[in-house]
Order: sequence, then C-alpha cells, then structure tokens
Amino acid sequence: MKKYSEALLAGSKLNLNVRMKEVRSDISAGMYSAIPILSPSDFPQYDRSAVDGFAVRYEDVLSAGLNNPISLKLVGSIHVGDANNIRIGKNQCAEIFTGAEVPEGADAVVMQEDAEIEGEYVAIFRKVKKFQNIGRKGEDLKTGDKIIDRGQRIMPWHIPAFIETGIEKVNVFDLKIGVLSTGDEIVSGKVKNASAPMLQSLIVRDGFNSVFLGNVEDNVEKISNVIRSFEGDLLIVTGGSGPSSTDLMDSILQNLGQIIFHGIRMKPGRTTGLALVNDKPIFTISGLPVAALIAYENVIRPLIFNWLSIKETRPNIVKGELTRSIFNNEAMKMFVRVRLSNKDGKIYVDPLRTTGSGIINSVINADGYLIIDENVEGYQEGQLVEVKLIG
Amino acid sequence: MKKYSEALLAGSKLNLNVRMKEVRSDISAGMYSAIPILSPSDFPQYDRSAVDGFAVRYEDVLSAGLNNPISLKLVGSIHVGDANNIRIGKNQCAEIFTGAEVPEGADAVVMQEDAEIEGEYVAIFRKVKKFQNIGRKGEDLKTGDKIIDRGQRIMPWHIPAFIETGIEKVNVFDLKIGVLSTGDEIVSGKVKNASAPMLQSLIVRDGFNSVFLGNVEDNVEKISNVIRSFEGDLLIVTGGSGPSSTDLMDSILQNLGQIIFHGIRMKPGRTTGLALVNDKPIFTISGLPVAALIAYENVIRPLIFNWLSIKETRPNIVKGELTRSIFNNEAMKMFVRVRLSNKDGKIYVDPLRTTGSGIINSVINADGYLIIDENVEGYQEGQLVEVKLIG
Repeated sequence: MKKYSEALLAGSKLNLNVRMKEVRSDISAGMYSAIPILSPSDFPQYDRSAVDGFAVRYEDVLSAGLNNPISLKLVGSIHVGDANNIRIGKNQCAEIFTGAEVPEGADAVVMQEDAEIEGEYVAIFRKVKKFQNIGRKGEDLKTGDKIIDRGQRIMPWHIPAFIETGIEKVNVFDLKIGVLSTGDEIVSGKVKNASAPMLQSLIVRDGFNSVFLGNVEDNVEKISNVIRSFEGDLLIVTGGSGPSSTDLMDSILQNLGQIIFHGIRMKPGRTTGLALVNDKPIFTISGLPVAALIAYENVIRPLIFNWLSIKETRPNIVKGELTRSIFNNEAMKMFVRVRLSNKDGKIYVDPLRTTGSGIINSVINADGYLIIDENVEGYQEGQLVEVKLIG
Repeated sequence: MKKYSEALLAGSKLNLNVRMKEVRSDISAGMYSAIPILSPSDFPQYDRSAVDGFAVRYEDVLSAGLNNPISLKLVGSIHVGDANNIRIGKNQCAEIFTGAEVPEGADAVVMQEDAEIEGEYVAIFRKVKKFQNIGRKGEDLKTGDKIIDRGQRIMPWHIPAFIETGIEKVNVFDLKIGVLSTGDEIVSGKVKNASAPMLQSLIVRDGFNSVFLGNVEDNVEKISNVIRSFEGDLLIVTGGSGPSSTDLMDSILQNLGQIIFHGIRMKPGRTTGLALVNDKPIFTISGLPVAALIAYENVIRPLIFNWLSIKETRPNIVKGELTRSIFNNEAMKMFVRVRLSNKDGKIYVDPLRTTGSGIINSVINADGYLIIDENVEGYQEGQLVEVKLIG
C-alpha cells in the first residue's frame, strides 16, 4: 500500500491523451478551454458613450454651470449601432445614447440631466472633464488580452467576452470517462448498484462526458473484454478491488497492461488503484458509495485535473474550531466527515461518525471533511483545523 | 428607485407557481427536491459484515490470543446477497465477506488476518467486542430519517441514499425560465447579444430550465405578444429597461400587469425591475453583460431561491484585508469586483475597476465582489472586509 502522496505522485507521472472538440462559444459554459484564448480585437471597438446625453468638445463647456449655461449647436442624434458620419466642430454637439459611438471631434459626453434642448441648440449646465462618460476603445479588452487559459473552466461570464470580441467557436477538452461496475451480487440484483450513478453525476458535475459500461459479473474474460474494447479516454471500475478472495482486477490489469498502484493508506478508499491499459488510465475503486466518493474526489479528480492542467478555481478550505477530539490510530490518511456551524461569528467543526465506509448518511449531512495525515495522531477538541468543503 | 433591500422585500412577497415533475432518482443530481424525502426503509436492511472474516459469537472467543487460539467449527460461507439460512451455535463460525448478512446467532466478525482455516475448523487468534466489524441494521439510515429537504439541491451523494433505500423516483421543481432580448440594435445585428447566452448558462448552472424567446425589436405590440404568450414560469427581459427615450418596458408591463418595482439603488444593475403578468414574475434588466450578471446573481437568483425555499448550500463569504481604499460617493449599493490573493496565510482583497457596467473583463478576472451598502461611504485600505465569491 502506497502513502496517499506517493500514489498521487506516481499517478501524476502518467499522460492522459486528451482529445479536443470545437463548440459554439455561446453554449460552452461548464467545459474546459483546451487552449489559451486571447482577444482577437479591441472591445469596445470604438469610444462609446457610457450614458444618455450630449457628445461635446470638453473645451467648449469649460465654463458651463447652473448659472452659466453654454449654448451648443445640435448637429445630430446617435443611437447604438448607428454608422457615424457626424463630426463635432467648435461649439457643436450631438445627442447620444448609451453604448453609441462617440462622433469624431467630441471628447466628452454631458449627461442628459445636465443639458436642455432649445430648438436647434442645447444648453449645457455642467462642465465635463476630457473623456468623461466615455468608454474608451479597448478599455474592456485589448487585442491580445487573455480571456481564458488552457484548462480553465468556462464560466457564464466568459461568454460575453467571447461574443463581444467575435469569438464564435472555442476548443474544449473532450474527455470521455467510462464507468464499469463489476460484481456477481450487482449483476444478480442482490445488491443495488448505488455507486455508478453517483460517479456519473460527479463526472457530469465536473464538466466531463460520462459513459456507463454496465454491470459485469466477476469473470476475467468478460471484464477484460469490456476494458479492451473501451473507446473512451479514462475508465473507472468499481468493485473487485478489495482484498477478498473474489478479487480479480489485479490479475486482469496485470495481464492487459501495467499496474501503477493498488492500495492507498487512506480511509475510506484504501482499495483504490490505478493501472495503464493501452495508454489509458484505469482506476479501480470500491463499490461502496462513500469509499467510491472519497476516491473520486481525492484521487481520481485531482489526477485528472493534474493531467489536463486544470486549476481549482475556488478556495474551498475553511478553518474552524474542533468540537471534540478525534484520533487517527491506524496511521492512514483519514477523511473525516464534519459539519460546520457558525456561532457568534466563529466557525465550529463537528466530526460525524468516521467508521463504516458505507455510511452515506455521514456524507449527506456533512459540509466537508477534515483530512488527517498518516503521521498525525489526531486533533484535540478546541484546536483550529482546516476543512475541505464538499461540493 | 427602491433601496436594494426594499426591492428584495417587495419581490419576496410575490408567489411563484412552481410545477413539479417526477424524475428517475439516479439521474436527479443538480435538480431541487420539491418535497422532503424520508427514508422508506432501514439501511442496511440487516446487520452486515464490515470486513472479510469469520462471523462468531463474541463470548466464544473472549480468551482468544496469539498464543491461545480458539478453535471454532466452520459451518458455512456467506457472500454478499446470499440468502442466509445459516445459524451460528456455540463454538461455531462462518466465513463471511464484506457487505454480507451476518448469520443468526453471530454477534461479531473476526477479521481474516486474525484467523486461520484448519480443515473443518477455524483457529481464532484475537478476541472481538460485541458487534465488532458489524454494520448494524439501520445504522446508516433509519426508516423516517430525512434524506433531503424541500428546496434542497440533489447532490451526487444523495443518489446512493435514494437507491439503497429503494427510492426510484423523486419529485423535483420544474422551473422554466424564459430569456427575451429586446432592442432594435440587437435585432439589426449592430450590437451582438452577449447577455442572453450568459443568462441561459447561469440558469442552467443553477439547475433550472432555460428557454430563449429570441431577439425582438423595440415595438410595444411585438414585445407584448411574446410576454402574453409565454408558457414558462418566470421571464427575464433584457434591454429596454434604461431611462433612455426608447424605454418601452414600463408602459408594456403596466398595460399587461403590475409593476412591483423598477429601478434599484445598486451599481451595476440600477435599471433592474420586476413586474407581475398573469401571476408570473417578469424581470427587466439591462442588456449590458455585467449589469445583467450582477442583477441575475443578486436580485433574480435570491428571489427565485426565496420563492422556492431553496437554501444556499455553501458559505461563500471570505474575509480579507483591503489593499486600497474604495469610496461609495453615490449612496448606492455597490458591487465592487475584487481579486483575492493569499500571502503568508493572510487573504488580501484587491478591488478591480468599478466604473463601466460593461466591463466584462472585471468579472473574468474577479474572484468575488465586495458589497458596499448604500449608507456606507467606503472602506479604508487595511480594513477587514467580506467578499462574496463568484461562481
């Protein structure tokens, strides 16, 4: 059995062959950009008005005030998207609306409420600074500005940046993850397969494609066939990974490829393994839901993120005070489910039951987990500890 | 213009008619449970072994030790899902595998490594406590335990609880949100519609159904028709909400229904409005992407969550030290985009540019926003402030 950190290190040395696909940028949220995307143009593409008002030369209205209106000749009206052939000369102005292109000659916009139309003239009651109320060309994004990095997840707010700079298609990772469940008891229906749909939901939550390869009985030939003919990029096999006499996976994987590790000093999830078959990573994990969940979140997902250079976008660590002492007397890396509570502005960390890797209730009610390293014997009540948030 | 808190209060008094639909529990992750779901059965349904080993009567092996093996008669072998007709009598044991039902008479399981099969007998080298290595009936979920509450989002780890307790279907909210974009400049293509696909992505991220109703020009009749014939539950209309002369939405909504509020003392997003037409909430928001984003995240989403009794599952507030002073000289509720950084275990909050509600770049690069209330004039460099994380 490897230490957790050793297992992740061994896994991180593999390569995952990643396919890309091109998708329409407006429906790309939730996927991962496969290349860095730079802005192909300035945005705004021109100086535009940030308000409804009047485009002026700021010099003409330097002395404007409530008691000293300056009268400018009105030479036109400019709406958003209007082709702009107006030119503002000395003591002239044009009506302009939010987002419209500032006409040649003008270098500031007076707000509507600071002006009054009087026939062919406009009285200006307030002076403006140069470029006041103007959004300058390229002030949002300049040509070459990085919009998103390789491996960064596309969020809803990236989409306007794509659209406004004319990016209609983006290249995203096209990762297909297979889930295969093994076990006579699952095929016979004596035990329900609760892990596979959970794993598929986790894969979808993470923005990857999930393919269920079915339930297969504990049979070397049948399992080998499914693994050999798998057309996706990465496979997760549940069941058959434990130390019991019905464990077949080791011999299957040794025969088909190469075992990177099998067994991690972590709890739950200690039967977690990784092999390489046809250059594809094959994870073997427990079929028990909580062990499968902890293995996915703390071994499989971190390794996929590592292989694809995906960065976690959010800090998901919270610090709080432990409400009761907990011990690690097995020298394993422990993932202890905890609840968080907030009292008088202080965060408290309340450990839930830690035994029984099948106890899904401990996850449903948990806010996160406290990770205890192999060489740490435990934490005392009242100690400040870090909690990794779930979800 | 209403204060932000007043607007949310006025909105929260409305009712949203929520439809439900029944979906298969194994594919329900990401949706919201429409009713509280209680466990219909105990799980485990029986006492089961937590390890591979031998089911014993703990009294029989009280004196077992490495130098004092206790010999028990082997009466059978029990795999997961086996119908259990074995009975363990005095000085008897049965081989048992992880997850299998503990046979009648037995009240503890000795681990494989603490025993040795010798023909028809098993030598036990270690004593066990009563119920040791046994997962008790109902220890995970008891009949009537709450698995999920009304309005709680179904997470991947709820699925095993549904499946293991025999819940095959769940009732979820079936909320259909329409997005309608208005504006001559969008219909003509002079300005690209960058907000609608962003809003649709936000709606999908939040687990609701999104329907795009198209781009419609600034025409009372055409816009009215789309709103009148809308078959979803809630509508978001972009554009036409500003104070400019082309603003039509107020007259349209007054004619079709009732305006709850129009205009909020917040920035960006001050043109945000809410009306009620045919008992359906209609939000009117700016078509500028950042204003639309802030309005969705801070007005629309909180009100939907309020109407559906959905609770935010995660604390998304982080505290940090402000790197430079910022001022609120407009007595508006300000949403200032900030970046977070971590130095020497301390979190720093770096405000990005705050002007220009069209500056999508400020959101792409932001980690969250600092909210400044209307009556707060600003925050000083070095002050500890709270940041609401984006995403």
